[in-house]
Amino acid sequence: MLINLFLLYVAARVAGALLARAKLPGVVGELLAGVIIGPHALRLLLQSPAIGAFNDLFAHLGVVFLLFIVGLETDPTSLLRVGRSSVLVGTLGVVAPFGMGYLLMQGLGYPLAESLFVATALTATSVGITARVLADLRLLGTVVAHVIMGAAVFDDILGMLALALVSGLTSGALRAGEVVLLVVETAAFLVLALLLGRPAVHRLTPRLVTKDAGQDRVFAFAIVLCLGFSALAEVIGLAGIIGAFFAGLLFAETQEAEPLRRAMHPIYQFLVPIFFVLTGAQVDLHALGTGPLIGLGLLVTAVGVVSKMAGCGLGALPLGRRQALAVGVGMVPRGEVGIVVASLGLSRGVVTRDIYSVIILMCVLTSLLAPPLLRPLLREEEAEPAEEGPGGEGRP
Amino acid sequence: MLINLFLLYVAARVAGALLARAKLPGVVGELLAGVIIGPHALRLLLQSPAIGAFNDLFAHLGVVFLLFIVGLETDPTSLLRVGRSSVLVGTLGVVAPFGMGYLLMQGLGYPLAESLFVATALTATSVGITARVLADLRLLGTVVAHVIMGAAVFDDILGMLALALVSGLTSGALRAGEVVLLVVETAAFLVLALLLGRPAVHRLTPRLVTKDAGQDRVFAFAIVLCLGFSALAEVIGLAGIIGAFFAGLLFAETQEAEPLRRAMHPIYQFLVPIFFVLTGAQVDLHALGTGPLIGLGLLVTAVGVVSKMAGCGLGALPLGRRQALAVGVGMVPRGEVGIVVASLGLSRGVVTRDIYSVIILMCVLTSLLAPPLLRPLLREEEAEPAEEGPGGEGRP
Repeated sequence: MLINLFLLYVAARVAGALLARAKLPGVVGELLAGVIIGPHALRLLLQSPAIGAFNDLFAHLGVVFLLFIVGLETDPTSLLRVGRSSVLVGTLGVVAPFGMGYLLMQGLGYPLAESLFVATALTATSVGITARVLADLRLLGTVVAHVIMGAAVFDDILGMLALALVSGLTSGALRAGEVVLLVVETAAFLVLALLLGRPAVHRLTPRLVTKDAGQDRVFAFAIVLCLGFSALAEVIGLAGIIGAFFAGLLFAETQEAEPLRRAMHPIYQFLVPIFFVLTGAQVDLHALGTGPLIGLGLLVTAVGVVSKMAGCGLGALPLGRRQALAVGVGMVPRGEVGIVVASLGLSRGVVTRDIYSVIILMCVLTSLLAPPLLRPLLREEEAEPAEEGPGGEGRP
Repeated sequence: MLINLFLLYVAARVAGALLARAKLPGVVGELLAGVIIGPHALRLLLQSPAIGAFNDLFAHLGVVFLLFIVGLETDPTSLLRVGRSSVLVGTLGVVAPFGMGYLLMQGLGYPLAESLFVATALTATSVGITARVLADLRLLGTVVAHVIMGAAVFDDILGMLALALVSGLTSGALRAGEVVLLVVETAAFLVLALLLGRPAVHRLTPRLVTKDAGQDRVFAFAIVLCLGFSALAEVIGLAGIIGAFFAGLLFAETQEAEPLRRAMHPIYQFLVPIFFVLTGAQVDLHALGTGPLIGLGLLVTAVGVVSKMAGCGLGALPLGRRQALAVGVGMVPRGEVGIVVASLGLSRGVVTRDIYSVIILMCVLTSLLAPPLLRPLLREEEAEPAEEGPGGEGRP
């Protein structure tokens, strides 16, 4: 276990440093390092069921803390100010890929159920990848970043609802009650988290600062809320990272936010790179070895990129053309949710192993493509924050 | 998994805060919280093989970082200055419990092999518990703490050698070559770590501080060495925590030690309490339900306490009487190594499940007993650092 963690961490850091030297986001290097040292290429990582289980859970913990920290660095007021844009971007960014993905697969003659699963896998942006790229570029404070983060969280929720729908439809028994329950629970969770949680956190945290323990109790309280909200989100059927993001958001405007950010930084530095290397390590290069499959994979990826950019870009047009382009590109990466959809379809026998590999390829390619494209688009954003109007103040 | 972590962390923090209010070390609260929420009492934690494996590895990671941080806070020069005392204390602290444990079990009529395993389980002080108590009391900088830490690390090494010996003896085929190999490898590891590692770390770390990344690369390098040294120590048959301790020691005198300590603090706050709750959760109260077994457990515990205090106290007498008493008490807790010995004996069929439970009880009781006793003894130590002579400067 220690040897594996050692290898993972060294790979993450070396690749991240190389990519940073090439002026590319470190996350791309970590993903590629994962592909290279993973079980389907160099096979450097030890394999055992216990280690596999540990890796899964450890990676999960990494992305939970990533989203908590992103929430902590997101100004909730600015997020609310761009709320309407985010909802529009998120909605169009789900509808367009779902529609185009469905039409593509039906056009190619795939069965209805399989087409629906591929369409669903195309919907949800990877909040993790997007947030990480924005953090790498230190642009979490910009308007574009707020729109992207809001939309990405919103489309993750929509993606989960789409999965519940499609999964009910294809199993022959759509239980409308379940979908309604998920909607109600999600709404209740968000209302509780923001309306009750925010004043509670604002009132509690100053009392937790003591002379003896310093900020230690604030830190402990933050960890408790982060783990608690994630667990709660998973219990009601959402992704844990959505809970973690909202937990972070609660602390973002407290007086203790700055020391808390500093305290979370080492945890980020330790856990997050390992998550991305492990994500890369899931790519099975051999499964994609056959020509036609690679072709289909590239086609699905192209549809995924174009549909997401079109949908989200359209939704973000009121922000200006360049900003709309940046939002569109920022929403391109797919990740966790796509992989969850593919796995569920595979285990149900609705999705074949070939199509499963196609979906994984799409998730990885979109994640690799977006970061280098986003950088130049957002660099300008950073250089001209004054253009952005009242929402443009940020933490550069 | 998130729910479990949430429960573990809440239990750790609540119990730790309650104990701190009662002016007792937080670690006692965490151990008790583990016993209470564990699978053998309230059964609050979810059980599954995957979660079990994750918990084991996560706890392991926690104690590795604990020892790294303790190494980082230990002044190697002071450690070397008290080196002779530490070796004497460590040696007598292994010989006395081994001898007395062996005589007790033989006197009670237990078989030779089982007696040898119990005797071995009594030898090694838990570096983890002791280090944690010293850290809780903020006394890692005192002479007594240096003697205890040096002796605890040394007797962990002796304990591992004893295990190799006993394990060879009882399996009927003592391979002397294996024991010699372990001794040679251990020596080579320590020499390499300290003679080559120290100048390398001192030369490298200042170069890793950059304007862009700040201390981030020093932090990454520290994590790499911590994981690497632990993995290496386990590969040659030592406990991983010994490697972690020496990795920490390498950074202790660099200019970057202070920022590194600050960066490691949140990781400590997150991982270490969970380790101690999980340790407590391993105690099976039901197995100890029968009267005679409890009696034997208390007898073995008493022998463990008395023999360790006698052996270590004798070795530490040159430091002064009160100091010798503090060293003796500080060395009492048994933990990891004792549990490892018991598990190995159980899996070999040499140790019965009853005796296994007795050893676990001894490990937990000695760990619970020592911290409250150590506090008053070391409080005086802290109040009169001037008495200690040239070695008395520390980080209070």
